[in-house]
Amino acid sequence: MRLATVGRPGGGTTAAVRHGDAWHALPAPDLSAFLRAGAPVRAGAEIPGAVPVLPLPTPAKVLCCGLNYTEHIREMGRELPSHPTLFAKFADTLTGPQDDLVLPRGLRIDWEAELAVVVGAPLHRADRATALAGIAGYTAANDVSVRDWQNRTTQWLQGKAWDGSCPVGPEVVTPDEVDPAAGLAVVCRVNGEQVQRASTGTLVFDAADLLAYVSSFTLLRPGDLVLTGTPGGVGAARDPQRFLADGDVLETSIEGIGTLRNTVRLTD
Amino acid sequence: MRLATVGRPGGGTTAAVRHGDAWHALPAPDLSAFLRAGAPVRAGAEIPGAVPVLPLPTPAKVLCCGLNYTEHIREMGRELPSHPTLFAKFADTLTGPQDDLVLPRGLRIDWEAELAVVVGAPLHRADRATALAGIAGYTAANDVSVRDWQNRTTQWLQGKAWDGSCPVGPEVVTPDEVDPAAGLAVVCRVNGEQVQRASTGTLVFDAADLLAYVSSFTLLRPGDLVLTGTPGGVGAARDPQRFLADGDVLETSIEGIGTLRNTVRLTD
Repeated sequence: MRLATVGRPGGGTTAAVRHGDAWHALPAPDLSAFLRAGAPVRAGAEIPGAVPVLPLPTPAKVLCCGLNYTEHIREMGRELPSHPTLFAKFADTLTGPQDDLVLPRGLRIDWEAELAVVVGAPLHRADRATALAGIAGYTAANDVSVRDWQNRTTQWLQGKAWDGSCPVGPEVVTPDEVDPAAGLAVVCRVNGEQVQRASTGTLVFDAADLLAYVSSFTLLRPGDLVLTGTPGGVGAARDPQRFLADGDVLETSIEGIGTLRNTVRLTD
Repeated sequence: MRLATVGRPGGGTTAAVRHGDAWHALPAPDLSAFLRAGAPVRAGAEIPGAVPVLPLPTPAKVLCCGLNYTEHIREMGRELPSHPTLFAKFADTLTGPQDDLVLPRGLRIDWEAELAVVVGAPLHRADRATALAGIAGYTAANDVSVRDWQNRTTQWLQGKAWDGSCPVGPEVVTPDEVDPAAGLAVVCRVNGEQVQRASTGTLVFDAADLLAYVSSFTLLRPGDLVLTGTPGGVGAARDPQRFLADGDVLETSIEGIGTLRNTVRLTD
């Protein structure tokens, strides 16, 4: 199944399930609320003109894994990890699949295309099998990073939690339709030029590993989001370095899931 | 004023304000909801037998500053910072002023007594004066840290976000009654033995600095919480190192605010 939060032409949003090209309403204002309620998917009326927006507007927890693709670990000059490197974002950090990325001028803004995992069941000290069974689906994300702030101190949060900086969506695809462990292409493009391409099959810690690990210290709930890390090709690791400029179009694609298309808008 | 969330003897909680030794109800189920609603403080009926519990059960954001007292920075072997080192906790990380700290056996659990700042107004790119005016009050916290997990990777989150590990409270005291910039004693005791003592007057970044800085990248809202960092004397920096054991009583006091008293309970 392909789930989303969609905007209605007249205003407002609803959780929805896609049948072919048509979106059908689910009984909740968004996918966060729908997953929390735990109701079965029973498609309601078709919504003409529906447009996917941020699928998960109110996750209680957003965790991200850094340094999870061998190639990106090497380009950042680090060793292969024995444990996942984890940091948090806020619900406010997320933005929709077509939204502008509005950030102040003068920052070193970089891209990080990522597979994101959506939690579908409460997970507390889950083993790998339980974690795998507790995945609601997968979506695309870009962990857009403000590198100068990220590197001001040892802790990355202040470069990773700028409001509205992390596009997510457009759809949440259930595990019966996509299998990241088998390898999905993760692609990032800037103004049409491919800057990242890798396979989710090369993740050091896969989706089930990450959910199980996180659940050993904090409860994961339906609608929570775990970003799995970015592959090689980020702007900070290039020579010369390259950062996002006003008007740049950032495209983030995960094979079998969909594409985020966001324009950078720098403000004074 | 002294505000809290209190448990009613018959069950349930309510936001409350203290007059002398008596707690009087405020029209919200807890202080998070009361601050979000933004209503003026008008004391209702007295609540006989009221007991302060976790004052802020549902903050949208909990941010923490590391390395913010000169002495603690030196004991951890680091240089004085030009920017605050920030990381996040979740609402689930917090627990009440008298609650047991229930954690699995076998972890290196350390104390970090801290002054916490409660946000009282929306703050977006606030300057110092606006941030100072947007403080609802101050409370006590202990950023209890699982050192072995904290140091598994470069990012501290996985040692700082164990569910129910961070006691907060017992009261939120408004800025007209306490002034951390003038110097409040922060004291931590383990089984009655003093292990940390410092003055909030020696913070590198004070409450207003931290709120202003954080608000430059993410909106702070009423009820959000910012922990200001811990002074010297943590267990990991001792020789030999010392960690919390089953049954240890951890007391965290901030002068003019109150004392948290939590017992460590290790489980299999």
